[in-house]
Parts: sequence; C-alpha cells; structure tokens
Amino acid sequence: MRGRAQGLYPPRRWSRVFEVIDRDGLARLGLLETRHGVVQTPTLMPVVNPNKILIPPADMAEKFGAEIVITNAYILYQTAKKEGKSFEDLTVHDVLEYEGPIMTDSGAFQQHVYGDVEVTNREIVEFQALLGSDLATMLDVFSEPEHSRPRAAADVDETLRRAAEAVQVKEEMSSVEAGFALVGAVQGGLHPEERTRCAQELSKLDVDVAAIGGVVPLMEQYRFRDLVRVIAASKQGLSPALPVHLFGAGHPMTFALAVLLGCDLFDSASYAKYARAGRMMFIDGTRHVSELAYVNCECPVCTDHDLAELKGDEKAIAEHNLFVSFAEIGRVQQAIRAGELWELVERRCRAHPALLDGLKEIRRYAQWLERFEPASRHTALFYTGPETMYRPILARFRSRLQERYSPPRTRTLVMFPEGGKPYMARRAKEIAQVEAVCNAHFLVKSAFGPVPIELDEMYPHSQSLVPDQLDLEVMEASEVFARHYLAGAGYEFGILWEGDATLAELEKRREAPEPIDWNLQRVRATAEMQFGRGAADALLAGDVELVRSKNTGRIRNVIAGGRHVLSMRAHDGMFTLRLEGAKLLHRAFRGPALRVVVDPETAEFNRAGKNVFAKFVVDADPELRPGDEILVVDPEDRLVAVGQAFLNREEMLAFKRGLAAKVREGLPA
Amino acid sequence: MRGRAQGLYPPRRWSRVFEVIDRDGLARLGLLETRHGVVQTPTLMPVVNPNKILIPPADMAEKFGAEIVITNAYILYQTAKKEGKSFEDLTVHDVLEYEGPIMTDSGAFQQHVYGDVEVTNREIVEFQALLGSDLATMLDVFSEPEHSRPRAAADVDETLRRAAEAVQVKEEMSSVEAGFALVGAVQGGLHPEERTRCAQELSKLDVDVAAIGGVVPLMEQYRFRDLVRVIAASKQGLSPALPVHLFGAGHPMTFALAVLLGCDLFDSASYAKYARAGRMMFIDGTRHVSELAYVNCECPVCTDHDLAELKGDEKAIAEHNLFVSFAEIGRVQQAIRAGELWELVERRCRAHPALLDGLKEIRRYAQWLERFEPASRHTALFYTGPETMYRPILARFRSRLQERYSPPRTRTLVMFPEGGKPYMARRAKEIAQVEAVCNAHFLVKSAFGPVPIELDEMYPHSQSLVPDQLDLEVMEASEVFARHYLAGAGYEFGILWEGDATLAELEKRREAPEPIDWNLQRVRATAEMQFGRGAADALLAGDVELVRSKNTGRIRNVIAGGRHVLSMRAHDGMFTLRLEGAKLLHRAFRGPALRVVVDPETAEFNRAGKNVFAKFVVDADPELRPGDEILVVDPEDRLVAVGQAFLNREEMLAFKRGLAAKVREGLPA
Repeated sequence: MRGRAQGLYPPRRWSRVFEVIDRDGLARLGLLETRHGVVQTPTLMPVVNPNKILIPPADMAEKFGAEIVITNAYILYQTAKKEGKSFEDLTVHDVLEYEGPIMTDSGAFQQHVYGDVEVTNREIVEFQALLGSDLATMLDVFSEPEHSRPRAAADVDETLRRAAEAVQVKEEMSSVEAGFALVGAVQGGLHPEERTRCAQELSKLDVDVAAIGGVVPLMEQYRFRDLVRVIAASKQGLSPALPVHLFGAGHPMTFALAVLLGCDLFDSASYAKYARAGRMMFIDGTRHVSELAYVNCECPVCTDHDLAELKGDEKAIAEHNLFVSFAEIGRVQQAIRAGELWELVERRCRAHPALLDGLKEIRRYAQWLERFEPASRHTALFYTGPETMYRPILARFRSRLQERYSPPRTRTLVMFPEGGKPYMARRAKEIAQVEAVCNAHFLVKSAFGPVPIELDEMYPHSQSLVPDQLDLEVMEASEVFARHYLAGAGYEFGILWEGDATLAELEKRREAPEPIDWNLQRVRATAEMQFGRGAADALLAGDVELVRSKNTGRIRNVIAGGRHVLSMRAHDGMFTLRLEGAKLLHRAFRGPALRVVVDPETAEFNRAGKNVFAKFVVDADPELRPGDEILVVDPEDRLVAVGQAFLNREEMLAFKRGLAAKVREGLPA
Repeated sequence: MRGRAQGLYPPRRWSRVFEVIDRDGLARLGLLETRHGVVQTPTLMPVVNPNKILIPPADMAEKFGAEIVITNAYILYQTAKKEGKSFEDLTVHDVLEYEGPIMTDSGAFQQHVYGDVEVTNREIVEFQALLGSDLATMLDVFSEPEHSRPRAAADVDETLRRAAEAVQVKEEMSSVEAGFALVGAVQGGLHPEERTRCAQELSKLDVDVAAIGGVVPLMEQYRFRDLVRVIAASKQGLSPALPVHLFGAGHPMTFALAVLLGCDLFDSASYAKYARAGRMMFIDGTRHVSELAYVNCECPVCTDHDLAELKGDEKAIAEHNLFVSFAEIGRVQQAIRAGELWELVERRCRAHPALLDGLKEIRRYAQWLERFEPASRHTALFYTGPETMYRPILARFRSRLQERYSPPRTRTLVMFPEGGKPYMARRAKEIAQVEAVCNAHFLVKSAFGPVPIELDEMYPHSQSLVPDQLDLEVMEASEVFARHYLAGAGYEFGILWEGDATLAELEKRREAPEPIDWNLQRVRATAEMQFGRGAADALLAGDVELVRSKNTGRIRNVIAGGRHVLSMRAHDGMFTLRLEGAKLLHRAFRGPALRVVVDPETAEFNRAGKNVFAKFVVDADPELRPGDEILVVDPEDRLVAVGQAFLNREEMLAFKRGLAAKVREGLPA
C-alpha cells in the first residue's frame, strides 16, 4: 500500500475551501471559506434582488442569521450594459452594500423562465470575477424535467464544456483578482445516469461548489419523489469533498430532506416572492395570510403583529418567512449534531403526501446511504412509521448479523416477541426458566429484525423506541427478517416463546445444563459485530476479566491476558478499542481491514497522539464507516495509533482538508 | 314529537357559560364566559405561583396571548391561614394583580404529590368563592393510574359526592357573591367504565366545566395510549355542552391530540418548572438548553439570545416555553377553523413513538368520533400513514356505500387502481373504450376503499392526496374493503383494469349499448349518499335539467320538474338543499329523518330565515352530522325551513346556548 491509492475523485484545489466539522450520514455541518468570511453550512442563501432590496443583506445577517446572500449577476450585467457602466468599477459588495460573503448566479434560471439569455458562459463568469463575487456560477444549461435522455445528455455535454471553460476563466483571472470560488452545475433532468455522469465529470474539474440545477419545477410541482432521485443520482456522482448547493430550494419544508441526502446550501427568492403574494411559509407548508384566522407562529413578526396588520405588509411577511426558514436551518444543524436528522426528516415528510413519497423513495438508496451511516448515535432511534424499518442503520445491523455474528446454533433457539428494553434484563425470569430445563439461546423478534439477546445493549437496538401497536408491514417484514436470519444462521427452527406452554414443550427435551456466560457472550458477539468475524478470538486470548459498573452491573472494561483490550461505552453498548486491543486486531486481521493508512511523513504525529487529517490519508478500509474504531498504520502496515474514523474511505481520499480520523492513543515508535 | 325529547344530558345552568363558535369533529373553537371576560378556547392556562410570580399575569395576556391564568387556591389558603389573614378581604385578582379571568385549583394535585391535604372540599370551594375566583375547582380524589377498579370506583364515588357538595356551595353562595363557575372533576384512573360513569354523573350536576384529572402521571411517563383511553372514556360520558379541561396538560406536543378528542382547556406549570431545570419545550419534545448547539426556534427569545445567554436564564426559557405553547394553541385553533386538525395531529404524533401509539389508539374510537365528524371539509384529506385509513370520515364513506348507495349491478364492473384525480376525467379514455364494447360500471380501488366512479368529486375522495407508494397495510385493507363492497353491493365479481388485455376480455361479452348518463348518475348517487336511500327518486321527479358550469363543465344546479331542488358545491361535490328540494324530501322521508324539530314558539323566526339555536331544539334525527343539510320542522312536522346542521342531535339537546343549525331559506307559513 505505497503511495496514495486511486481514490474515486482526484484531489483538487476545491477541497481547500470546504471542511466538514460534524456529520450524520451524508448530512454535514461544514465550513465554507470565502474571501469575505467563513460560511457555516448547511445554510440558506437569501436571494437579494439588486434592483429592489426588500431586506438589506446586513439585516439578513444581523437579524435572521444569514451567513451568505446570493444575487443575480445576469441582472447586474444587463443593467450595467444598458446603463453603459464600466464593469471595472462595479463590485457586488458595493451594489448590495454588504461586506459579507456573496454568491452570484449566472442567468441559467432566466434561461429556464424566458428561454434564452443574452450572455455567454465566458462573459458571465468573467463579469462575476470582476464583480468580486465570492462564489461565481457558471452558465449551465437548464435541463427541463420533460427533456428526453438524448436532450438531457446534450444539456450535460454542453454544461460540462462550459464548466471546463469556467475553470479556465478562473485560472486566467486568478492572478488579476484575488481569486473567486467557482460553482459548477449538475444537470441531466430526470435521467439518473445523466445526473451521475455530469456529477462525476464535474468532480474532475477544479470547481469549488457543485450546484444541482433544474430542480425548481420539481419543487413547484411537489414532485419530491423525483427530487430525491435527482439529488441522489447527482450526489452519487459528486466528490464527497464538494459542498453541494441545491439551486432554488428555499422552502423550509424541504431543508431537512435535502440535507439528509447531502445538500449543504440552499438559495431562494421564495421568502420575498411568496411575501409579495401574501403567502407565509411554514415548516409544514405555505398558507396565504388571508387563510389565517389565528396567529399560529412564534416568530417575532407573528407575535408582534395582528393578522390584520400582516395582511398587505409584504416586508413583514418576508421577515416571517426568513425567521421560519432560518429556524429550520438551525433545527437541521442541531439534528445533525445530535444525530436526530432521520427523525426530523421522517416528521417533516408527514406534512404532505408528496413529501411522504420522497421519504419512501429513500429506502431505495439504503445501500448507498449505509456507506456514510455512522457506527452509532448518542440518541435513541425512533419508530415513526413503516419507513423507519428501512433506515440504513437497521439494514446494516441485519446484514452484519448474517455476515459477522456466529450464533451458538447447537442450542435450542427461543424467540421472544418485541417487548420492554433492555431485552435481557426484562426477560431475565423467562431466560432462567428455560435454562433450568434445556440449553437454549435467545432471540428477540423486534420490529426492526431479529436481535440475539446478548446484543440488546448495542446500538441501534439498545435505545430504539417503537410503539406497542406495530404496522402490518412491519410485522410482516419482522417475520421475513426472522426467517431469513434463521436460515442464514443455520437454525432449523426457533420456538416462539408463549409462556408456560413453551416451557412444557422444552421440558420434553431436558438436557444436562451447559450454562452460557452471558457477559462473555455479549463481549464476544459485540466484538464480532463491530470488528468482524474472528475479532472475539483475536481479542480475548488468555484469561478474560470483565470489569463491571458498580451501579449498573454493565460491562465497562475487558481485560484479556492481563491487558486492557476494550472498553464498553455506556451510550451505545459498543467497544472503544484500547491500544493493546488494537495490537491484537492488527496481528489477526490483514490489511486493509480496519486500517487507515497514513503518509509516512506524518505518521510520527499520529504516534504522538495527533489526529489524522484527510490530506495525509493514503488509503483506508472500504468497509470503515464514520465512528468505527480504526487502526492507524503507515504504508508498511506498522501500527501507528488507534482511533475512530470521522470519514469513510471515499471521503478520506476525496478531502484535502479537515479531519479524517481521531486518534485516541498513539503507539510510540 | 311534542315537548323536548329526552336528551342524554338534562340541560343545566352550565350550558350558559360555554358556546361553540366553530368545530372540527369533537374539536371546537369556543367562548367561555367568566366574570372577568370571555375566554377563547381551546387555550392554555399558565399556572401562576402566587408565592413566586416569574412572569406577571398581565404579561401572560399581553405578550403571549394568554386568555386566562390559573393559580392554586390551596397554596393561598395555607398562606392565609398561616398568616392569620381574613379570607373576606382576600381576592385572587388582587394577589395576582390581574383583572382578567383566573381559574383556581383546589389542592387535589397536592394530594397526589404529598398524599394528603389539610382542607375539606367544602372549605376550599368556599374559600375560592370568597377569593372571587372565576372558575373554582372542587377538591376531587386523585385516582392514581395503578389504582384497582374497586379503589378507582371509590375515588369516583367520593369525587361525585364532593361534586354535589360543591354545587351546593355554589348555590348557597350565588346570592352573596357574583357567582362563580364551578369546575367538577372526572376521575376513575385507567378504568374506562369508571371514567365514563364519573363523567355521566358529573354531567347531571350543575357544574360549569368538567376537568379530566389524574392524567399527569400518564403524561410524565409518556403513556399517551392510556391518555387517549382516559380522555375518550371521560368525554364519552360528559355532556357535549361542557367545556373540558385536561388537568396538568401543558406540553405543546400533546395539545393537538387532546383537542381532537374534545378537550378545550389546558393548564400547566411546566413552562416554569421546565425553565427552572433549563428545559426548553418544543412541539416535538423537550430539550435541555445545554443539549443545544444551534438556535433552533424562531420565537423572540431564541432569535434575540445567544444560546450562551439562554443558559441559566430561567425567565427567558420560561418565555420561550410560553411562546412555543401559545403558537401551538394558535396552530390548533387555525387547524380547527381550516378543517386540518387530523392532519396536524397525525404530524404531531410522529414526534415520539409513544405519541404514535396514542394516534394508533384513536382508530378504536372511530364509531364514536364519526358521530361528531363533519359532512365535509374545505381542505384536502392528506394520507400521512396507515393510520389515515381509519379516519372517521373514511369509515363513514365506506359504510354509507353499503347502506345508501345502489350500484347498477346488472352491468359489468370494471375496477381501476388508485390513480390521478378526478378519477372520471383521468379515466375518460378507458371508460369510453369499455363502453364501446359492453355495458359497464366503474369503480376505483382507492387507498381508502372503493369509490364508485360517479362519486369521485364528492368529499372526501375528491380532494384526498395519497403518495404513489402505499404502505402494505393500506394495500391489503384496500383489497379487503373492495371485496367487502362487492359482496354487499351484490356483484359477483369485478374485473381489474389491466389495459388492452381487459378490453380483449370484455370484447367477448359484447352487448347492445345502453349508455349511462354519467351526470345524472352522479346526481343520483350523491343524493343517496348524502340524504339516504330513496332521496334520488324523491328529488328527481319529472324532467331533470342539469345546469353545468361554463368553465369547468361540472354540475352546478339540479332542476327537476321545473323546480330548482339542489345546488352542487364546487369544494366538496355535495349538495346544498334548496327549499323546493326540501319539500320533496320532507314528503318522501318520514321523521325523524333529516329533521331538526324546533319549539313551535320560535318556528316563526326560522320561517323568516333566522338560524336555529340549540335552546329551541326539541329533537333531531340521530343520524344528522355537523354540516348535513337539514329540514327544520315544528313539532307537528310542518316544514319550517331548510338549512345546515352545526351540531349533531346529542349536542343540540345538550346545549342551551349557541347555534344548532344555520337556516338557508325559511318557508313562510
């Protein structure tokens, strides 16, 4: 493993302007650097009409928390040309009287609305450079949803040609100007292959932000299922290191969903356009102010105005729309931080059946989403409906059971129905009753799939909350998952626990007791699920001592052969790998398993306990997921440190900036 | 039908203080009259601690929109006794420095918390009367959830004894004081029979407000399924004319659900108690301020404070909690007005699996809820999950199809799958294709049950929105509903439309065409569904002329035998009954069908076009639902007017105040 492995996306200059500071799956809290300051993402860029400034950009920042605004360079271009102004003296920051970050748009949307624009891609990018725009946008070709595949392919070809041209302009002008960041566009209409192709090719160019375009008609027509398909197809082709802008998405009802799929930036004139029409935005939809008989919002505008005052007050309604939009941005940010974004999205998508269709579409992308899904979260997983069952974390648990878990299959399998948690403690009496008569293993047929009872404290099952009354679809799927598990695990059958009748049945097969050490079984099963088959044998050589919490009795530390190899985390029932454990896994597992391979030049810093930065990652195990315990090694596969992944392999290789993995303990040379 | 029919609840004085001004099922917008002003319900009464006023009641009203506050009379009683104060000089309005409506609580909750209180029911009610409380509460016996049925029955017996005693105090003191309104309590723990019995007996007494008590432990423990059972059992026993208070319910996440089940008032100290602990309330749950990394609320407190400032600022957090709570009250009020409360509740109940359990429990009460369910709404019905299928309006449509609709069963039945709306217009091509080869009738197997194609513009199917991807449970139920319909309607089978293959199959049974007049069929079917079997024949005697909209082609007016008998409403595809139509239905249908019988003394006002007030209703058809077209008759069954019901029969008989039905046209004597 010498030299930097071939990542999916060659590292480029753009990876310099964007850094991920926290994440939940594809959703991320990021920092986007511009010449006028750092922008915290995800965020909304309110559109400022340079000819009619309803709310000044400075207020946008001060009052509503806008990090960046966007204005239309094409409008400025037309005005400047008409008025015979010199482009040289014009700056967008002067025009908007704002010294914060400003993105400019190119006129591609005008092309969608009016059919054509009177400017070339080169002209408008050069113009934006002269304007001093922080984020300048290429003039892409707007693929309409109804465009055929050949037409969309042609749109993509032309968009990519122009993207390359824009990159050239950026390079030409970088010496003259302070250098702008370039927004490239992903087009391709409703054709996933074209979207992915456009995204992949764009990612090879030196663009700084990728904007998914052509989606406004989908949002206007509430085609959220198509929106999910378009975002997913685009995002699957894009380098993970690129910040992703969803062009024209300005309704707070869609923010959470789009962020879940990896979007970082939104822009919209809707707050103002809607206000002009008397329409108020809410997280669950839009209502005309005249439909309202009661104030039903807590924003400063609504708590300070009578409805009668609001009617006809365009500015007040625009302010309401901004308050609501930025509060939702805050909720999305908070949800990423807390690991609750799925729950937020599942709630938001109940606002309209078309949004529910968007949510239901996501299950088709579970395999892709799983690659970015964290190892665990600090918060409980909530059941909100049949959709929850297909969440990537649950699909992962089910498939890892097949791949990594080794059931004690010589024992009789007793299956409990879903019930109180933790399962083992709540079923202690029944377990003892069964163990008194035969050698059994136990499984809970949970709503989300089978859970071997010794894994009951491991995320996601440890903390998941389900209603008492399950949906039919979930009950049926739970049955299918259980049967699938039995077949895969080599059980001929399992006995469904039905109280005394079951006991009487088991009594018939009375066996000499061979009691299971449930604590050891928990440690072994958790280690295998977390690190892979063989991990338990590797880690638990020699005498095993389990140090348990005095308060809860739960396992805290695992000492094997006198060495502290593992610590169990209370919040997710998973292991933190100690250096001694890491040595054992390193010896037992061949690369690339569990490895993050770092540049030999920087390995000494990791040995000293410093974190691993993406820039210095040479390669990594493709099976690693964010939050997984990792072995940091040098290209000679010498163990350098033990830590926790922040990015997965494709992200580590794509990013040139920011954290790739945290180091917990370094191994001095 | 002479004299006032025996209603379920004898009309009493309480019916004087509460009036319903709008409603959506059991949920209602009401006016509660107190000596210190009228209170708009549903609303939240913030608890003011008389010994520690965090937010002055005047601010509660001014800043947050509180209509009424509540304070604890037992605390005032103890303080006054300890300080040797004379009760005569003490008024609660002075203590709180507030001249708006004030409710006082009795100490029953203290009994729950501390096990006992040092005051009798008579003492505390008398004390509250002297205090000048607007709503004085009896000292009920708090039934703990774990109380056995006999214990709960004893709690109920004692609570009812004390309620009667409190009524006596109220009567004794009514001459001395200006007269207070009395809050009686419904107890009975988790035993529905005891709850219902307590509610029924309480409704026979002269109490003004019914408070459902003993529910705080359920809410603290997130036992929302039990909460739904308790509210439903209580409400089923209570007179509909009583405003209903849910004691101790102060979390905005539960308001919508409780209002849907007929609660009108909430109270809670939570806003302040939570604030003291740094806990912020949101519509989707509670978060500790220290958990927050991002401001995620649009209220004036959150948009004006950094999170760092909020931490430790008890008053600011309390204000946030109030802003959020009252905004939710506004949303609930707006939802009642707009007919969107079910959608709001279904959204809210996704905030936690325990709330989802509460929502799922509601389906068990569909038959009861249906009695209060409006005939139609102005807004589209949204599918939010499998729960939607069991909404009372959909259950009603399915059962009315069985009871009222007469299919043309000699024709071949072709069934279309769920699809675009309106079904008939979207299937025009297929219908024409089928009609060219055989005499067929058409049905859409919608997600919510079968829809004869000529009823496609009638609420609820006209406007309902479902996702493209249905839940398994819905697909299976849809199949069952269709089979049930076929059996009931006398069809041996239906042919599922599968395009050309179906056409080829139908080709084999080629018949001489007997075309259906679909417009006439729509009129007939709608009339029967709306007014009952036989209505079409009664209304459509003689030549029938259908006046259609020039723009949409949709039926507007129905002229039969030269008389304008019906008008069809665009928004719900249902009929407005004209006076000429009313005469025909009156002749064809015997009482009590479609009738509201009014006091002969007031009939002349109705003949002059004045509305029917509940006070003057003698009896009514038990099958009438809010929004149904009605025949207003006198006790001799002479037709007096035609109009629209606002209340159902049990409500009309219970209320002594407010509207019972709107009169559209009177019939001069």
